[in-house]
Amino acid sequence: MTHAPSRGPTSPAAIPVHGRETVAGCGERALLERIRTILVSGRHQEGVVVGIGDDGAVVAVPRNALTVLTADGAVEGVHFDRAFSTAGDIGVRALAANLSDLAAMGAEPRWALLSLALPDSTPVGEVDEMVTGIATLAAAHDVAVVGGNVTTSPSALVIDITAIGTVRPRQLLTRSGGRAGDELFVSGTVGGAAAGLEMLRSGVAADAGHPCVVRHVRPVPRVRLGLAIGRARAARAMIDLSDGLADAAHQLAEASGCGIELDAETIPIDACARAWWESNGTDPVAAALAGGDDYELLCAIPRSWQGRLRHARSRVGDPPLTRIGVLTRDRDARVLRRSGARVRLPRGYEHFGSRSAN
Amino acid sequence: MTHAPSRGPTSPAAIPVHGRETVAGCGERALLERIRTILVSGRHQEGVVVGIGDDGAVVAVPRNALTVLTADGAVEGVHFDRAFSTAGDIGVRALAANLSDLAAMGAEPRWALLSLALPDSTPVGEVDEMVTGIATLAAAHDVAVVGGNVTTSPSALVIDITAIGTVRPRQLLTRSGGRAGDELFVSGTVGGAAAGLEMLRSGVAADAGHPCVVRHVRPVPRVRLGLAIGRARAARAMIDLSDGLADAAHQLAEASGCGIELDAETIPIDACARAWWESNGTDPVAAALAGGDDYELLCAIPRSWQGRLRHARSRVGDPPLTRIGVLTRDRDARVLRRSGARVRLPRGYEHFGSRSAN
Repeated sequence: MTHAPSRGPTSPAAIPVHGRETVAGCGERALLERIRTILVSGRHQEGVVVGIGDDGAVVAVPRNALTVLTADGAVEGVHFDRAFSTAGDIGVRALAANLSDLAAMGAEPRWALLSLALPDSTPVGEVDEMVTGIATLAAAHDVAVVGGNVTTSPSALVIDITAIGTVRPRQLLTRSGGRAGDELFVSGTVGGAAAGLEMLRSGVAADAGHPCVVRHVRPVPRVRLGLAIGRARAARAMIDLSDGLADAAHQLAEASGCGIELDAETIPIDACARAWWESNGTDPVAAALAGGDDYELLCAIPRSWQGRLRHARSRVGDPPLTRIGVLTRDRDARVLRRSGARVRLPRGYEHFGSRSAN
Repeated sequence: MTHAPSRGPTSPAAIPVHGRETVAGCGERALLERIRTILVSGRHQEGVVVGIGDDGAVVAVPRNALTVLTADGAVEGVHFDRAFSTAGDIGVRALAANLSDLAAMGAEPRWALLSLALPDSTPVGEVDEMVTGIATLAAAHDVAVVGGNVTTSPSALVIDITAIGTVRPRQLLTRSGGRAGDELFVSGTVGGAAAGLEMLRSGVAADAGHPCVVRHVRPVPRVRLGLAIGRARAARAMIDLSDGLADAAHQLAEASGCGIELDAETIPIDACARAWWESNGTDPVAAALAGGDDYELLCAIPRSWQGRLRHARSRVGDPPLTRIGVLTRDRDARVLRRSGARVRLPRGYEHFGSRSAN
């Protein structure tokens, strides 16, 4: 374990491959050593008492802080497609999903554990890229990857990350703190990641640099914004948009014992996503509500707390926060459309193919 | 979140299936609700501030304690075979592997996160069994399962568990604390799990109650023993035998900067495993050294600390601890055979098919 200042991850080019190109050829011990080198070299590891290499990692949670734990898995063919995402993208996205969960609780990300199940045929160079992606995003947020495990997989590549953050008790945000009358704000723009995935699937935008495609393959978790909102105590409830805006709105409202009304016209739909959907004859509002993976934050803020919100925003600059609706006393979930019609807010995406009955 | 005294997990029979038999038919939201009900109902959740159902779980680490983190994954067709292990076995084994890692650090297990990647065709009843297995073992050790995620898998079932424990700084044990002259003790017996797996694969012991088969499918992590050794400060270094005795001995010796000499005649080989291997013409010592999944503990104890060791053992009774060797000043790893010959200690099992070069 080194304690030098953070200098970012070691380049995998510095680690010889010995001409053995797949993980099966490399062997478990050598592979673990490569991964450890990329994750640890030159990184400052604050609060790490025992890092990678023992039966468990040991960390010191700061005094007076609560510990926030989140785990998120990504499965090849379900959460990512090797045709669209590089190995580095896959690693970044898996960690970003976890950092976004911590951000939604107002927690400061600190440590992570990485579990990989790799097909024997996986090129070692791709493992290097994936781990380098993780190490780079981790370094950007002062997160130390302190352990995990690597195993073989008979088929799909599976990446599971557990992230651990800390938060002062008074700064903790949950989904359930909202009250009727609180205004709903969303960070950044929505729909970009979903449109990017559609573009990739349709084959029209193989351009990896297209803004929507970038939103899909390299999402940016709102770590600094989540922390700033928590520290300024500027929201009563918060959630991230991992499963889409509609799902997040439903979850926040239900956990808070409220209903919800969103104003369709105010939803900050990503410009490239809107153009894509309009060119396809798709309703941008419906598509942006249903689309997932934007990793923006949705928060419930009383009108009288707007000063605190301005304070939080002044500390982080981007992304903007947009008022898109309000929590209501009745338990309905509605969207106010441009026509003046109030329609039921659809539920978001579910795994396992089926939709919930309600 | 309930705060009633622990009454063990809710029976899945209490949760209606509505005639939808696979996870694809059940849908994600309903499945998550089933899992949550089994894991949480009636359980006392010490130190849990926010449990399952938010973006992350929030826990309170006791003052003056370090946090120990470990993650372990099990993949269908690699770590378990659905022909040999029931769904309940798979759940128990995945959590046991994690609890064993915490035990090896002298840490008290407290919380866990569960990540499941399930083929769409998985019967909901099997998910119930798996989660009930986890909930039962967790309850036995006062572990609260506070979060995780469930997703679909295109092929193999993958179960990933992260366990979180706490330990007082002076009671923490690592692999690296051993010194030349320390005696090596192993808990319980070794080889049983490996022999059990061989029996299952050979088809001779479909009897699920055979002692070796039970060792394989329902391993018992040495949680109380690990804690007692840590609290009595009775060992300088400790490791679990998840990858077998030979691997554990190598790892402990290397981390401690020592060599190792094991006395083959003193290794407490499981009686049923010995009989199995002798009937097959296999060398029981070699097989027991290489076989994994026993989840016993190996510790390095100075001769002058035997009083502390007796104290720790008096607090837990079973399992016995057997002296099987010593850490040496030179860096070699040897086994003393009955013939008087000293042979090189083999390395243990590796994933990805290949063996390490050294």
